[in-house]
Amino acid sequence: MKTGTTKGKVYLVGAGPGDPELLTLKAVRILRSAEVVLHDDLVGPGVLDIVPKTAKVHNVGKRCGRKSWKQSEINALLVELASFGSDVVRLKGGDPLIFGRAGEEIEALREAGIGIEIVPGVSSALAAAAAAQIPVTHRDLASSIVFLAGHHAHGQSADGVIEHLSPKTTYAVYMPGYGYAVMSARLIAAGLSTETPCAIVAQVATPGERVFRTTLSELANAPQLPAPTLLFVGEVVRMAAHATLDSEAAWWTPESFADVAASINLLTQDFGTQERTRRGE
Amino acid sequence: MKTGTTKGKVYLVGAGPGDPELLTLKAVRILRSAEVVLHDDLVGPGVLDIVPKTAKVHNVGKRCGRKSWKQSEINALLVELASFGSDVVRLKGGDPLIFGRAGEEIEALREAGIGIEIVPGVSSALAAAAAAQIPVTHRDLASSIVFLAGHHAHGQSADGVIEHLSPKTTYAVYMPGYGYAVMSARLIAAGLSTETPCAIVAQVATPGERVFRTTLSELANAPQLPAPTLLFVGEVVRMAAHATLDSEAAWWTPESFADVAASINLLTQDFGTQERTRRGE
Repeated sequence: MKTGTTKGKVYLVGAGPGDPELLTLKAVRILRSAEVVLHDDLVGPGVLDIVPKTAKVHNVGKRCGRKSWKQSEINALLVELASFGSDVVRLKGGDPLIFGRAGEEIEALREAGIGIEIVPGVSSALAAAAAAQIPVTHRDLASSIVFLAGHHAHGQSADGVIEHLSPKTTYAVYMPGYGYAVMSARLIAAGLSTETPCAIVAQVATPGERVFRTTLSELANAPQLPAPTLLFVGEVVRMAAHATLDSEAAWWTPESFADVAASINLLTQDFGTQERTRRGE
Repeated sequence: MKTGTTKGKVYLVGAGPGDPELLTLKAVRILRSAEVVLHDDLVGPGVLDIVPKTAKVHNVGKRCGRKSWKQSEINALLVELASFGSDVVRLKGGDPLIFGRAGEEIEALREAGIGIEIVPGVSSALAAAAAAQIPVTHRDLASSIVFLAGHHAHGQSADGVIEHLSPKTTYAVYMPGYGYAVMSARLIAAGLSTETPCAIVAQVATPGERVFRTTLSELANAPQLPAPTLLFVGEVVRMAAHATLDSEAAWWTPESFADVAASINLLTQDFGTQERTRRGE
């Protein structure tokens, strides 16, 4: 529908894993001047604090309490808002192109003739690897890394993605859920040793961050750590180190939490000044 | 060697793909107060501009003109600097844990009892996917993504990583080199169709950024775009869009280049003020 109005643009922006300090400068710049923001559940509250109070902010998370959004509704809302001239920030946890259904949004926007700019972010798996000090590639242990979604590791697909697994690869499973017994059986059947180390990283880059390390044969007995979680499988996981690693009961308050708070202050202070300048205050 | 001096800490920091605006706030904070920085060749000059003039900056890139550094020498230098009490920033292009031999540095530092903090970054493959608008996972087309290094795709390894490839996976090949004929033959032999779309993304997030799209059967005829490059292979690559995509000869000056310059000014301005405050000026 051509209305005569100049169409807006849609920015598909990665919000990183949760800690606002893991936003890119580019994401911060775009969020500071946002008029409309559509975000997922996984975007942390500290990140949304950066958005101006005057902006319209919609939670279109599929697990949002008040309404469950279908992907087609999100696509339609993006197209509608941009068609009426708004620049829209579509904010996704982690990197916007990894398991975020960005492809469908891109297709809908292109069909409607709306310009798109994609701002990459720190993917949750890489933030989790950093927190757990797991070098996901390693000269001797892993020459590649595979990102896959939990429902595939559970065997609900027949597309051959995990038919043949290599002991020289690191597997990062997003949204693994708690069906560890089924998953470990599937991974072992696909060629991995029962002694392959694995680690669950829970709530990365938040105060609840926690790492539990085990092996494929023992994975079924792992605790059900609070979501969001990520599961790493592969020889490199032997190298994991984390304050919570050897004390299952202890919850870790990361030393970096003070940094997060300082970062939010910093943002408010610096970018707040620019914002007021921009608004002519 | 215990000298009585308090040991320093080593920060393994991701510099992102090149554009300083794709640094995280955390990386910027750490770089702004760095005393010693060891960086690779792939770290862009705009990123190094953030480091205080008073800091010692070493290029330990393995392709560095004046000296070729061995990994063992880099490990030893990190240990030595931190043992004498310096906090050291080990700055790597992209994310620090992907194809950066961070594992060996972590092992050496742990052995020497030196504290490590890892700051994840925007991996080059994700920045390249964003630039080329390739949704690396897609509900219908790709349920996983594999990051692998060019020398494996060339068949120099026998570790089974690319013995069995799936048409429902996206492959991101780092440092693919120019042996496209060998590589495409290998990928086809491992199970991919000759018509699988692929794209070379060159010099992502710099003014020389360029995308060339082809298929596996035609890959051998692709131009040798200037390094660094990344190769994407998989059905999602059909969706690639970029200003350079249909004009092989044209070089693209991205609209975002002005943003990069603005970002550097912003950094200098804001963080410069804090830096002076910190120094008591």
